[in-house]
Amino acid sequence: MTDAIGELRVDLERIKADILELAQIGRCDEDRGIYRMAFTDADMEGKRWLASRIRDAELDQSQDGAANVSGVLAGATDLPRILVGSHIDTVPCAGALDGTLGVVVGLECLRRIRETGYVPERTLELIAFSDEEGRFGGMFGSQSVCGQINPELLATKTDTSGIRLFDEMQRQGYDPLAALDAARAAESIECYVELHIEQGPVLDSLHKQLGVVDEITGLFTWSVRLRGEANHAGTTPMNMRKDAFMGLADFAHEVPRILDENGSDRSRATIGKAQILPGATNTVAGLVEFSLDVRDTSDVVLEELAAAFRKALSAIARRRDLMFEFDQKSFIDPIHCSPDVVNQIASQADRLGLDAHRMPSGAAHDAQIMGGLVPVGMIFVPSKNGQSHSPAEWTAWSDIEAGANVMLHTLLNLSSGR
Amino acid sequence: MTDAIGELRVDLERIKADILELAQIGRCDEDRGIYRMAFTDADMEGKRWLASRIRDAELDQSQDGAANVSGVLAGATDLPRILVGSHIDTVPCAGALDGTLGVVVGLECLRRIRETGYVPERTLELIAFSDEEGRFGGMFGSQSVCGQINPELLATKTDTSGIRLFDEMQRQGYDPLAALDAARAAESIECYVELHIEQGPVLDSLHKQLGVVDEITGLFTWSVRLRGEANHAGTTPMNMRKDAFMGLADFAHEVPRILDENGSDRSRATIGKAQILPGATNTVAGLVEFSLDVRDTSDVVLEELAAAFRKALSAIARRRDLMFEFDQKSFIDPIHCSPDVVNQIASQADRLGLDAHRMPSGAAHDAQIMGGLVPVGMIFVPSKNGQSHSPAEWTAWSDIEAGANVMLHTLLNLSSGR
Repeated sequence: MTDAIGELRVDLERIKADILELAQIGRCDEDRGIYRMAFTDADMEGKRWLASRIRDAELDQSQDGAANVSGVLAGATDLPRILVGSHIDTVPCAGALDGTLGVVVGLECLRRIRETGYVPERTLELIAFSDEEGRFGGMFGSQSVCGQINPELLATKTDTSGIRLFDEMQRQGYDPLAALDAARAAESIECYVELHIEQGPVLDSLHKQLGVVDEITGLFTWSVRLRGEANHAGTTPMNMRKDAFMGLADFAHEVPRILDENGSDRSRATIGKAQILPGATNTVAGLVEFSLDVRDTSDVVLEELAAAFRKALSAIARRRDLMFEFDQKSFIDPIHCSPDVVNQIASQADRLGLDAHRMPSGAAHDAQIMGGLVPVGMIFVPSKNGQSHSPAEWTAWSDIEAGANVMLHTLLNLSSGR
Repeated sequence: MTDAIGELRVDLERIKADILELAQIGRCDEDRGIYRMAFTDADMEGKRWLASRIRDAELDQSQDGAANVSGVLAGATDLPRILVGSHIDTVPCAGALDGTLGVVVGLECLRRIRETGYVPERTLELIAFSDEEGRFGGMFGSQSVCGQINPELLATKTDTSGIRLFDEMQRQGYDPLAALDAARAAESIECYVELHIEQGPVLDSLHKQLGVVDEITGLFTWSVRLRGEANHAGTTPMNMRKDAFMGLADFAHEVPRILDENGSDRSRATIGKAQILPGATNTVAGLVEFSLDVRDTSDVVLEELAAAFRKALSAIARRRDLMFEFDQKSFIDPIHCSPDVVNQIASQADRLGLDAHRMPSGAAHDAQIMGGLVPVGMIFVPSKNGQSHSPAEWTAWSDIEAGANVMLHTLLNLSSGR
């Protein structure tokens, strides 16, 4: 690389303009939220906007069978390519940055490199994955690229209102079965890198401009039912109750102990949902159904946590004379980022004089799926007050610029063919 | 009293017939539940059925302004009268005995005495109170008798679907303001006695045929809100959370300690209702709203429990960085039954060779309201498995017969003018 390339910087004004323009697509005037859920009309408009921006940047624009939108800057060789990306679909009432920022920054990096006339050794490909937010369960776009989709899944995936992915894709003019053609050979990809907002409070509270993600947490979620006996709150003595809610309270009380005994400092356990039945002030709860969401970056730790939670549930049910059962609703393996990519990101951050923080990603991202196929790395930028999935989601422009420049030089170095 | 009167017994077959006949009114064939909620058409049909049965028994039938149905067996003197009663309105999907049993037994007692030609010194009055189950909040019938109703209450009481008591009474042909005329002078009543199913498991599990109620528990109910911050379950470290649900779990965990430290063996505390928001598996709870129902037979104990629960809430909110607030939704004073009436009931049970159990009533009854005006006493019969407010509610006929005979001789003795 020449010195001029070494001094190359992104154009923050173009990043700003792209973010603000894309934020208008699917925006609701009432709540200021963005509604670009996968395969809705707004999502389609977003894909068209992105494709047009890619063409404006004189990159080679395409869309695969899973509706993943790509922009390619051809390299000088046939060496495996570097992928950079994220997603532009959103949750309902989203902010402007989740996913979008990684795509817009990737676009700006390739555009900036393209403008200089510099030709990297390896091909660089921007990719915006479909349905990262899981409208139809899972992460359809990156799972398709990784060959994790099959005809049965295509036919059975539905959203929470029962709409089938298959029908929704057809409605938007796609052939759903073409998603099977989106699978790529691991040999064709050198690595995948993604910039994303942290969606948590760590960087903001530590006053760090940048996070270098070394691991992406795995998780399991359970749906647990504790069944006791609904009884009158006045006539049933305390020692004659089978109070399902008190079983839940006992269990919640054990969570910190179980994390202390079996977890790591990267462990999280959350009871975010609970239904108490019959749910009357003057009635002892006969049934509770609640969710348990447990995360860690080590599969061994996850297994130990699962065993400890199971034991606790079983002991509490015995002690309180309750029946218990649970279903595992989901399980995702933790992913270790590629040490090479992590070091590359960290050294570029260092060269740019940024104070970077090594950290896990507690949320799932396309990088987690891609990590099953190829080496991956992630850059985090701070989320103000840790806010995300809401119109309050925001990151300082200066932090976005810093993260984008780290991505630019990471891509330049990864694509230099060493 | 003559020896013959001392040997008098109720006619169980008539009690059976009355219970089974009344159980047909408002019965739903699908769930086998009874729907005779106050001032519905089924409740009106029940009142008409009762009035006709009272007239059949050649008692003096009347209805007061609160639609309380009475049947009077005039005594030989003008001494204050003895009231015996309960209610025939029901909760939705009720069983056949809650309230109804007390009215039917009262009717049988007066009918049986009337048939013998025996004239008691004091007048005996059967009364079936309106809306004991609180469709419109409170206990309208007994509150009217006790002078606790006023024009504002009449105008503002609504049921859970917003229907006004005022309108519903008019629809059924009543003048709502006439309820103000239902108030009675304490001097006109010697005492009020009520037979009721226990609605709890104590007698059934102790294999006792009869309960002699010595106290009726008072209660307070709170609606408590704990407000934290809704955050991502993966990206928010455990020590940076403001988890409203964990605040609730901490509080529930303190309930047994608070009862042990401040309560009596008659204390009950129940969290029967809780709403967790936003209520998603992958989101730390930002807000919980839950109910607390606390009962005891001593107002001093109730006050101490309230203070202890308040302190616990406040400490937990401080520790977990939550905001908390609570509203007292209801407060009912505990009532001590009249020692004279209690002893009368106990000695009649003893004379009839029954193994009676002294116990508090954990549920509220018309006797609790009447206890604010005149001396009261209550007889409990066992509830199979403690079941109530459901079609599974039942009591053995032999236990009903035993309870009814105790009521018969209690009434005979109380009305003997001593």
